[in-house]
Amino acid sequence: MRYTQFFISTLKETPSDAEVISHQLMMRSGMIRKIAAGIYTYMPLGLRSIRKFEQIVREEMNRAGAIELLMPGVQPAELWIESKRWAQYGKELLRFKDRKDNEFCMGPTHEEIITDIARREVKSYRQMPINFYQIQTKFRDEIRPRFGLMRGREFIMKDAYSFDVDSSAADLSYDKMYQAYNRIFERCGLNFRAVEADTGSIGGSASHEFMVLASSGEDAIVSCNACRYAANVEKAEGIKQQQGGAGQQALTKVHTPDKKTIAEVAEFLNIPQSATVKALVLSNGEGKFVMALVRGDHELNELKLKNRLGWDEIQMATDDEILRFTGSPPGFLGPQGLKEELLVVADYTIETMADFVIGANQTDQHYTGANAGRDFQINQIADIRLIGAGDPCPRCSGGTLEVWRGIEVGHVFKLGTKYSNSMNATYLDKDGKEQIIFMGCYGIGIGRTVAASIEQNHDDNGVIWPLPLAPFHCSVVAINAQKDEAVMSAAQDIHDRLEAAGVEVLLDDRDERPGVKFKDHDLIGIPLRIVVGGKNLAEGKVEFKQRVGGEMQLLVPEQAIETVIAQVKAACGGTR
Amino acid sequence: MRYTQFFISTLKETPSDAEVISHQLMMRSGMIRKIAAGIYTYMPLGLRSIRKFEQIVREEMNRAGAIELLMPGVQPAELWIESKRWAQYGKELLRFKDRKDNEFCMGPTHEEIITDIARREVKSYRQMPINFYQIQTKFRDEIRPRFGLMRGREFIMKDAYSFDVDSSAADLSYDKMYQAYNRIFERCGLNFRAVEADTGSIGGSASHEFMVLASSGEDAIVSCNACRYAANVEKAEGIKQQQGGAGQQALTKVHTPDKKTIAEVAEFLNIPQSATVKALVLSNGEGKFVMALVRGDHELNELKLKNRLGWDEIQMATDDEILRFTGSPPGFLGPQGLKEELLVVADYTIETMADFVIGANQTDQHYTGANAGRDFQINQIADIRLIGAGDPCPRCSGGTLEVWRGIEVGHVFKLGTKYSNSMNATYLDKDGKEQIIFMGCYGIGIGRTVAASIEQNHDDNGVIWPLPLAPFHCSVVAINAQKDEAVMSAAQDIHDRLEAAGVEVLLDDRDERPGVKFKDHDLIGIPLRIVVGGKNLAEGKVEFKQRVGGEMQLLVPEQAIETVIAQVKAACGGTR
Repeated sequence: MRYTQFFISTLKETPSDAEVISHQLMMRSGMIRKIAAGIYTYMPLGLRSIRKFEQIVREEMNRAGAIELLMPGVQPAELWIESKRWAQYGKELLRFKDRKDNEFCMGPTHEEIITDIARREVKSYRQMPINFYQIQTKFRDEIRPRFGLMRGREFIMKDAYSFDVDSSAADLSYDKMYQAYNRIFERCGLNFRAVEADTGSIGGSASHEFMVLASSGEDAIVSCNACRYAANVEKAEGIKQQQGGAGQQALTKVHTPDKKTIAEVAEFLNIPQSATVKALVLSNGEGKFVMALVRGDHELNELKLKNRLGWDEIQMATDDEILRFTGSPPGFLGPQGLKEELLVVADYTIETMADFVIGANQTDQHYTGANAGRDFQINQIADIRLIGAGDPCPRCSGGTLEVWRGIEVGHVFKLGTKYSNSMNATYLDKDGKEQIIFMGCYGIGIGRTVAASIEQNHDDNGVIWPLPLAPFHCSVVAINAQKDEAVMSAAQDIHDRLEAAGVEVLLDDRDERPGVKFKDHDLIGIPLRIVVGGKNLAEGKVEFKQRVGGEMQLLVPEQAIETVIAQVKAACGGTR
Repeated sequence: MRYTQFFISTLKETPSDAEVISHQLMMRSGMIRKIAAGIYTYMPLGLRSIRKFEQIVREEMNRAGAIELLMPGVQPAELWIESKRWAQYGKELLRFKDRKDNEFCMGPTHEEIITDIARREVKSYRQMPINFYQIQTKFRDEIRPRFGLMRGREFIMKDAYSFDVDSSAADLSYDKMYQAYNRIFERCGLNFRAVEADTGSIGGSASHEFMVLASSGEDAIVSCNACRYAANVEKAEGIKQQQGGAGQQALTKVHTPDKKTIAEVAEFLNIPQSATVKALVLSNGEGKFVMALVRGDHELNELKLKNRLGWDEIQMATDDEILRFTGSPPGFLGPQGLKEELLVVADYTIETMADFVIGANQTDQHYTGANAGRDFQINQIADIRLIGAGDPCPRCSGGTLEVWRGIEVGHVFKLGTKYSNSMNATYLDKDGKEQIIFMGCYGIGIGRTVAASIEQNHDDNGVIWPLPLAPFHCSVVAINAQKDEAVMSAAQDIHDRLEAAGVEVLLDDRDERPGVKFKDHDLIGIPLRIVVGGKNLAEGKVEFKQRVGGEMQLLVPEQAIETVIAQVKAACGGTR
């Protein structure tokens, strides 16, 4: 493809609303253009990378036996009312009425549609296992769309849905998708982790997220340095440890003037923060309350507590509510001497502690020498804290957890019968008996993965594409292209021979200075570059250079061509 | 692909709401499933044909130098307000508000978005000509969605938009698209015509429709039996003919009791209908009126009259309005002796007539011996009638027009500066002077073309696919597949060798009787079929049969394989 026959529109300035590097570079390199908040046009350059990723996804889904179909973007309200999500889903579900006043929404996900199709079409155990997928444009009316394709409102997603006769068959379908997802992100050349994750609003019994590692990632994940355990930090498990010895000290009230935070109290009493216990009062917003206890240097994981209690929502109690249960303003809370009965849930770690410090439920007062059981009651001991770097691995003995930042690009769920139950998707088993279908669902953000690749791979000069996602594999930069016929003819020849070998080439035939061209190709992130012209060409040589990690080499054209073909084959050689 | 690993769900019954054959067969063969009125899921089988057509379109657009991008489906109101279509477009434009109360619509077409992109990105004459296209899902809130994919609400369309420095450059871009469209429909193996058409609500100066011929088509088109002229009947031109001789008879009022229609009057007076003139009163709905005169056996073409007068709307006058201008109830209208001044527009044909019959603007009264000019005034002579079979060709001398039914599958428009003017899309010319951009737009209905192919090609047994659009090129039907290992192994071998040669094969390995399998493959419309099994296989032969137009042949597998490969290559061999 000649540069002058393609359309690339680079920007010198970084748009002011682009906060993250992938958004900045996708705008500057002309991959996307904003039409409205969270709504973009994929420009020709951007669409090439999008389509390449789609194709990798499609090949691996097909290889895993999934079957492609295409569901509509506009979905009737009836199906969402059946699944009960019409009421549950918040304002992210964009709802509207058609000209006949029927209610519809823009599909943010397709469990309802596919379950409706399955209950009409999949009627016998002989039709399962079956897995349908699509690559389709979705819409979620995000309250704060930002970060370009990373959190857009209109976005392209691959979503797959498996249907099985029972839970163990569904586990096999899930494993197939888990393996396919690993192959997909491996083929893209991305550094990623599959981590255990919370199932959130999609529901179901288990899930894994696929995280592209990047320091700018919104999610924290942990992984073991000894085994394969990895999890989203919100899901990462704490372990029940040996109980500590009995307390030696007596419970003693001490005056801690104006010391409200754990750090202030520990410093004032000259003890480590790990010798204190933090108490928090939380509610489900509908009249239920809990006091949570974690070690002073730990953080409460609200999601774990919420799941433990089976609540739909969780929020900090108000000052008034705290006063009602403890008689104290915040800052001095503790489990001892509560005013009203209150469920007390303590993290596992608390069991290992003795003679610690707690709030005394009085302004400027704490207790030292506190001991659970002796001085106050705990109703439940559970895993309710945030896990962090250095914590022990919950799977192997001796492993230690490390913390990474990641960008969620894929998510696989064991749905169980959540949707098939509410929408009555059943089949007839071998004995002609009606049974409920078991489901799984599996998503990959297409644009988000392409953006995450940039978050992970870039430098000051621009994007660095892994070959499998690059809009073009190789640039051929013709020096003085518009004036020197010999240069253009040599460049065109190299271009043609590369293209004939299946390499995607961008031949820069513009009437621009070499420096301008190099800058553009670096910004766009083309992985391989051949420069044709000048003294080198007179000597029968061309320059070959990789976007990163390689010195410039002077090669005869034949060698340069072979090198490019070999690198492209090695990285994109396709299906293994 | 094995049948049991794919998903095909055929229906025995035709759904009651499927009125046309393509809708019936797409439902029965399991290509599509309805989710809501005019909203469908493309099932795996249907999606294969859709994707094949998309790929043909993509290849030909790329070959013509158009560049693919992808615009959003959700569009902000601002741009439509700028182009003034927010007010003009009717209820087909589905409008809604997002969570922040900003107005949006589901894009029914993308002139506004692409013009916005062009005015931001195309700033120099050096960037043109340029043509952007996309294959994208659109939404039009049709008042009466029906006919399956033929008139759906959510549908896939290829739309392209060209940008040029001036009108003659824009004509070249238009011609390129016209040629590309011809290649696209030729490659599909469809019988089609490119016809001159009205520009309608998209606007612009000229347009062609691409019509797939089918007796069930909603549009009537004419084509010359001697030259290449073809047009939508609503656009087909009448020609100005030799003026007739002067009248011989005197204007005479005759009593025509209860004879209101042309047919009744002609019969009563014992004259041909072509010796009468029909008068109609019409209005623009906003206070303007016209009397149109056409020969008694002709029909008025309201669209031509509307365009001639530059009206936005045209409708029949009410009885009260007719009474006001003529003093008569409908049925006896004529141009003679009007009560109020009224613009009279006559078709060209009227000039050739003398001594004809007109209404006398009195109940049960007509005039014989009427002559224009002598007995009444005509303000304009113009081409305002519907052209039909047997009319002379407006382009060549001696040619005669034939009438066909067609389905509009593509439409190309010369837009001129309609959108670039209202949205201020300009560029700098060679002299640095600001100039307005000239545009063209070019659409193809993807699903509609696939449906039109079925309307054109089917029989009592089901769909007949042209090879380039077939979901699979060839079936391999294994007789007694689940029980006879030799059969399955031979069938699998044929399947594998065909697939290795690039043939798309559906290997029917189901545990079903041969008759059931043949019925399904006929319904689905697979063009080629190899039957493996039984006595024939024992003798080293397989059956080869085409879906239509060929006798069953007994061949050795090698021959059958070669025949299939040769036919697929001949039909789909790709790019010419």
